[in-house]
Amino acid sequence: MLEPQTGAGRADELPAHGGDLALARRAFPAAPQPWLDLSTGVNPYAYPFRAPPPEALTRLPEPQALAELEAAARAAFGAPASVAVVAGAGTQALISWLPRLLRARRAAVLGFSYAEHALAFARAGAEVETAARIDELEDFDAAVVVNPNNPDGRMVDPQRLAALAARLARKGATLIVDEAFADFGGRDASLAPLMPPAGAVVLRSFGKAYGLPGLRLGFALCGAELAARLRAALGPWPVAGPALDIARQAYGDADWLAATGRRLAGAAAALDALLAEAGLAAAGRAPLFRLVEARNAEEIFERLARAGIWTRRFAQKPGWLRLAIPEGEEERVRLREALRTGPL
Amino acid sequence: MLEPQTGAGRADELPAHGGDLALARRAFPAAPQPWLDLSTGVNPYAYPFRAPPPEALTRLPEPQALAELEAAARAAFGAPASVAVVAGAGTQALISWLPRLLRARRAAVLGFSYAEHALAFARAGAEVETAARIDELEDFDAAVVVNPNNPDGRMVDPQRLAALAARLARKGATLIVDEAFADFGGRDASLAPLMPPAGAVVLRSFGKAYGLPGLRLGFALCGAELAARLRAALGPWPVAGPALDIARQAYGDADWLAATGRRLAGAAAALDALLAEAGLAAAGRAPLFRLVEARNAEEIFERLARAGIWTRRFAQKPGWLRLAIPEGEEERVRLREALRTGPL
Repeated sequence: MLEPQTGAGRADELPAHGGDLALARRAFPAAPQPWLDLSTGVNPYAYPFRAPPPEALTRLPEPQALAELEAAARAAFGAPASVAVVAGAGTQALISWLPRLLRARRAAVLGFSYAEHALAFARAGAEVETAARIDELEDFDAAVVVNPNNPDGRMVDPQRLAALAARLARKGATLIVDEAFADFGGRDASLAPLMPPAGAVVLRSFGKAYGLPGLRLGFALCGAELAARLRAALGPWPVAGPALDIARQAYGDADWLAATGRRLAGAAAALDALLAEAGLAAAGRAPLFRLVEARNAEEIFERLARAGIWTRRFAQKPGWLRLAIPEGEEERVRLREALRTGPL
Repeated sequence: MLEPQTGAGRADELPAHGGDLALARRAFPAAPQPWLDLSTGVNPYAYPFRAPPPEALTRLPEPQALAELEAAARAAFGAPASVAVVAGAGTQALISWLPRLLRARRAAVLGFSYAEHALAFARAGAEVETAARIDELEDFDAAVVVNPNNPDGRMVDPQRLAALAARLARKGATLIVDEAFADFGGRDASLAPLMPPAGAVVLRSFGKAYGLPGLRLGFALCGAELAARLRAALGPWPVAGPALDIARQAYGDADWLAATGRRLAGAAAALDALLAEAGLAAAGRAPLFRLVEARNAEEIFERLARAGIWTRRFAQKPGWLRLAIPEGEEERVRLREALRTGPL
């Protein structure tokens, strides 16, 4: 247990991921309730789904329901029919399996980025390096690009990724493009429509864009041979019934995605204005988060936490603070007040 | 697509698992609706849970909620504090990872049994054998006993399994005991309370006993070192929010488990009587299923399917037919009629 009112702001004790409000409560027990959680990159506007039928829980998910979900996801991502779409219980399940199935000896991640890729390759016995530039990725058996990147929003042109994948494929190597935050970027921001038949894996996450990360659902788009091994590893019932039912509704609703993208852009602009007011320019941006860079990021984190607002710090980047997009004016007022007042 | 009214009864085209009603509909399109699915070993009396809060979907599951579920499961299974309890998105996710993490070169499964264990070890590169007797399991790096066994209900005394695990542990080998169907057997039927600190893994499934397999939830009970590797492989959010919330309710409700066990025993006795009436004695039994052995099992399967009743056949055991426990008299009347009438 952490000491009250200390700790969670210090770089040596940071949680590995956002969203851990139990930790926030332990570290800042005097903070006003309820906590405003801006520590993840989850859409505050959850998809308004119809409740799944009871059979989504009382029966084993059927192979046909899985195939239908994967077809709906393929259409939503704009992936060609030549590419396999494999659903798993969250992208994390796919991130863990890929290094084992690819059997890469040397892997590189375009950094600084989401930590779980490097961890998964290291656990599978690979030597893992962080690459600073995309052309450095060509000398590895497996290369990972998070696009848009988490947490700084850096974008690599999908045309460039397609060319890189083709070059890697000729050497028997594989490019993994994690598009966990790509849903609101439009088709031009995704490698999915340009996928080569082999040598590339695109990862997509359902929960962040649709505001339902508790369902645990993610997809790998890849060639047939890798897809078969991935399906075998995940086994016969890889996705829970509620996720199958709800995500199939959501991926069929392009209107909601477009309208919500506009709504998010408005809320993100309001956040940008609020941050500018406080003298904090966004150093990185994606539709679902902003990255702030500040000399006193630790103090800002702590001031916000004392006001019951949980943000995301990074052990390796002490000057960085990532904030999700606040839902509406009530949340922005709270954030504005917290940034304005209190000891710095 | 299968040809109408043929196929799904032939041993060379059997589905690998029960519960695939889409296949049943394709193979027997003229069967009366709705289908009565007796092809799985799922409890027909689902746990009457309180609906999870919206945050179970709209937030990432928190580490503390996972720890609380694992504590509730530990108490329900009667596992000592020295044993780690690791939750995953269905026992299948654990079955797939264990061979990779144990790195066994030679594995044996006490057969005939649930096929996924042997498949998972083979995929991980192990040489896999089927053992006919429990004492044959001692010469392997990893040994698997499904207890009670699926599909024939064979039980091995947990004391005997504890002794076997201790002998295997001395050689650095591991015993995996899959207790997917153990929940209604009482603590004496489980290895969990007798777990040694290392050398044994007990697998438990939530969905079958609680009638909610769509949630996808299973547990591995094992030593600390293997548990740490399993947690790392499963990643930070291994279980969906609805499963965390509902299973925590269910594992705290020992009264429901006891009452439902009695209710199931009554329904199973009624099924036994009905089978005896039709000249079919149960050749194997567990609280959630009965196994019928008959020279004309394929004909019985097909007759039932034409009446809209889906049962479970096994490619390697053409004389076997597994039936789940029908929920009530309405389902039994339908089964009785189907067994009595129609061409044989």
